[in-house]
Formats: sequence, structure tokens, C-alpha cells
Amino acid sequence: MISLEALAGGVQAGTLYGIGVGPGDVRYLTLRATVLLRSVDVVAFFAKRGQQGNARRIVAPLMKDDRDERRFEYPVTDELPAEHPDYQDQIGHFYRETAASLASLLREGKSVGLLSEGDPFFYGSFMHMWRRLSADFPVEVVPGVTGMSGCWTRANVPITWGNDTLSVLPGTLEEEQLVDRLRRTDAAVIMKVGKNLGKVRRAVDAAGLLSRAIYVERGTMQEERILPLAECGEPQGAYFAMVLIPGEGRRL
Amino acid sequence: MISLEALAGGVQAGTLYGIGVGPGDVRYLTLRATVLLRSVDVVAFFAKRGQQGNARRIVAPLMKDDRDERRFEYPVTDELPAEHPDYQDQIGHFYRETAASLASLLREGKSVGLLSEGDPFFYGSFMHMWRRLSADFPVEVVPGVTGMSGCWTRANVPITWGNDTLSVLPGTLEEEQLVDRLRRTDAAVIMKVGKNLGKVRRAVDAAGLLSRAIYVERGTMQEERILPLAECGEPQGAYFAMVLIPGEGRRL
Ligand SMILES: C[S@@+](CC[C@H](N)C(=O)[O-])C[C@H]1O[C@@H](n2cnc3c(N)ncnc32)[C@H](O)[C@@H]1O
Ligand SMILES: C[S@@+](CC[C@H](N)C(=O)[O-])C[C@H]1O[C@@H](n2cnc3c(N)ncnc32)[C@H](O)[C@@H]1O
Repeated sequence: MISLEALAGGVQAGTLYGIGVGPGDVRYLTLRATVLLRSVDVVAFFAKRGQQGNARRIVAPLMKDDRDERRFEYPVTDELPAEHPDYQDQIGHFYRETAASLASLLREGKSVGLLSEGDPFFYGSFMHMWRRLSADFPVEVVPGVTGMSGCWTRANVPITWGNDTLSVLPGTLEEEQLVDRLRRTDAAVIMKVGKNLGKVRRAVDAAGLLSRAIYVERGTMQEERILPLAECGEPQGAYFAMVLIPGEGRRL
Repeated sequence: MISLEALAGGVQAGTLYGIGVGPGDVRYLTLRATVLLRSVDVVAFFAKRGQQGNARRIVAPLMKDDRDERRFEYPVTDELPAEHPDYQDQIGHFYRETAASLASLLREGKSVGLLSEGDPFFYGSFMHMWRRLSADFPVEVVPGVTGMSGCWTRANVPITWGNDTLSVLPGTLEEEQLVDRLRRTDAAVIMKVGKNLGKVRRAVDAAGLLSRAIYVERGTMQEERILPLAECGEPQGAYFAMVLIPGEGRRL
């Protein structure tokens, strides 16, 4: 049996790795992500204020104690709406500073693995670093199992059959926008449900889809919670929550 | 360092595993998929007539010689449109017979891993087995990195930013349908491009998106080919091909 290291490749000095760590269960890391976690000089991650950082928590079973880690703490997450000028100022400043810190590590020749929940190029904050650093430094992105794949797997529903169309919608859209888009698709995934749960539920109901909709909180993580959206009365959901509307296309 | 086996869990007799094998590069298999490949009694997979089977090809570097393998050959793939009654008859018959073969292995107490490209619950043929067998046998689905994640990673484009909506559309839709849906989304992935490439290109152009569209053939596989859709003049694409239209949402 060839070794994991031989199969999954090496690590280059001065390179930024955007490491997709999957939806939550450490077993859903890829071989490439696992090898990089073990071999990069620095493991970097984002975290909310006062929290360990979700991506860091996902990889905990694979981390050695002697690892050089850099934690970058968001000055603000969902206390302010993303459209608010203060949010944009604070987050813009934070991303610029974080990119500068990463750049100085890379200039020293360090290999840096920046963790990203799910897949880095799918609504990932890694993208804001990639945008600032990829012109000046070598970057490798490691795709990951998305949060939505983890969620439909645990909910035990195939999401798309045959010629089904799938719409991925952020729960931050306005209610009428959500209704309109839900009416025009076969299957849907509504991300960023959190504070938008009440609105999302009303929109799903208005689109006539409430009986098919499933609410998944922290899919594949330890505190996973899965229930029909119709039975989910609370006004707010968890940050890691989404709503799934499985397609009903051709079954052969 | 704990062993992969200890981390990624065991295998149960008489259980069907739907194993997502990712987009093509073997390094994008998950730990759970890798351990199951090594430990299930039987590795089963679908293949087109006269071909090795793409999912089987993806895992080749991990397969031992003494492994019990079952190859199930499609009687028809894209020689006929999926709406054709002959296609539906032949494929329906094939899926029923395959499910019966798998059921008899499971009844003997064998653990069976059925390979699925990308993620099993996302347009996967595994779903047709799951539908027939999950009431009678224990089934575990292992999510995988989707083909689209592999493709946008290699094309080096983040697909969705901020509040972008993403539409996943099968290239089998009618041209006007495609145009209409492309006009109403921020980002798009058009799957099943193959024979539909000419139509897909016209639809993307009519929706005013040709300058942003990227054609990806066999993303992360050995014969990978990536080019602007605008430069892709051939009337037909490969079976493993998709078109990506990256979103342009909020950058912070
Ligand atoms: C900033 S996006 C990051 C998406 C991530 N890059 C991916 O590939 O899934 C965060 C949103 O993803 C969704 N999400 C990600 N993982 C999830 C999980 N395990 N369970 C439920 N929702 C999840 C939630 O809707 C959350 O608001
Ligand atoms: C039957 S669907 C299977 C999708 C798969 N279950 C997944 O998660 O990606 C087959 C279609 O997926 C797309 N596809 C899957 N992997 C691909 C890859 N590596 N490169 C390009 N297209 C791919 C193609 O559009 C193809 O027609």
C-alpha cells in the first residue's frame, strides 16, 4: 500500500494553501487537505470573537501540539448587516491586515495553510485573501466537500435527479426575491439561514414548498440537528444552518 | 499520529456504501472514502460500454489487486436522449437488475461500496440504487467533492461572493429555458454539456454572459482542458464537461 504522503503530494515553501476542510466531520477531509495540514509550516484560520473557530474545530483530531498556528479574529460577524458601512469598513480593514500578516509569512518562505470550511471557492472567506495575495505568491486551492453536500447526505435526500435545476440562494435576499426564485427552480439550497430563519420560512411557505423543506443545523458536526422546516418554529436559526428543498426529477 | 483507520471508522457487514470519489484527482477523495475502499468486501461501479468506468479510474491508485470488483455496464448512455422511451426502458431494466445483484451480495452479508463520481446525492446514478435498496438494507452515503468544485478550483475562479445566487442547470434544458434562467442568476454552473455544447454556447451568448464563461473538460483529471467558452468553437463537448459563470458579488 503506497503511503498517504506519497500519494497526496508535497508542500512548497512560500506558498499559500487554501485548504477546504469540508462540512464538519473530520472524516470528510480530503487526502490532500490531510497531508497539507500535517506538513505546512503555519496553519492559519479565521474565528469569531471569543470562539475557537469552526474550521479549526473541524481539524482538531488531526492537529499536532507543536504546530505553528495563527488565529485571525473577525472584528464583527453578524452583529451588523453586511450592507452596513461600519461592517464594510471594519471587515475591509481586517482583511487587509490579515493579508499583510500572511504576506510577511510567505515572504519569509513559510508555507501557510489557511483553513476554509467546506469548499474555499464557494462563499469562502479565503477568497478575500486569495484576491489580495494570488498575484504576488503561489497559491494552491484544495477543494472540499461543501456544507450543502454534508447537509443533504445527513438529511438522507438526493438533492437533484435527471434534469432538475438547483438554485443556491443566500437567506439574506429579500423575501419577495426568495419567493420568486424558489418558484422558478426544481431544487433549492438556502444558505446563511441564521437570523433570516423566520423570513426564509415565510418565503418557502409562500412558494408552496414548505412540505418538502428540511432544516439542517451543523450538518455532520457534533450538535447536528435535522427537522422538517415546517416544525421549526423558532425565529432565528444557528449560524451554520441551511434549508434544503430536494428535487423531484426523473427517477429511472 | 492516530491512524487513518482509527480516525475514519469501520465497515459493517451487509451494508451498502455510496462512496463519493470526487471530481477526478485521487487526492480529492475523503478519508472516509479511502478507508472504505480498502475495507469493503466488494467494490462495485458503473461503466459505459467498452470503457473502464470513470469512477473506477479515479480510485485506481488506491485499489489492491485482490479486491472483489463488480462492473455494471450501462446498456446505453448518450446514444439516445433520456426522454426516449427506449432509453427509459433499457436503463430502467438495467437499474432493476443491478439493484438485484447488489441485494444478493448484501443478503450474503457482504459490505459493498458503490463508487460515485463527485458527490453521490448530486445527479449521481448511485441514487437509483439507493432508491431501490435503502428500505431493505443499511446504507451509508459518503459525500464527495463535486465535479463543479473541482472545476472552479482548477479554473481558478471563486464561484460565489457575498450574496450571489448560484444556478446549477443541466445543459439538456431547452435553449430558451437556459437563456431565461441564466438572465436571472448571479453565478451559474451548466452541467451535462457534452452533446449540448453548441446550444449552451448560444444560450450563454444570448444571456450576455459569453465574456465571463469558462469551459472545463475533465476538471482535475489527466486530460483536463480549460478555456474561455468564447474560444470553444466545436459543436460537441466531452461527456465530462461543464460551463462556469463566476459571480461578481461583494468583495471586501
Ligand atoms: C460563509 S458560508 C461558507 C460556505 C462553505 N465555504 C461551504 O463550502 O459550504 C457559511 C454558510 O454555509 C452554510 N453551512 C456551511 N456548512 C454547514 C453545515 N455543516 N451545516 C449547515 N450549514 C452549513 C450555512 O448556511 C452558513 O451560513
Ligand atoms: C451524472 S452527472 C454526475 C455529477 C457528480 N455526481 C458530481 O457530484 O459532480 C455528470 C456531469 O457532471 C459534470 N462533471 C462531473 N465531474 C466533472 C469533471 N471532473 N469535469 C467536468 N465535468 C464534470 C459533467 O457536466 C457531467 O456531464
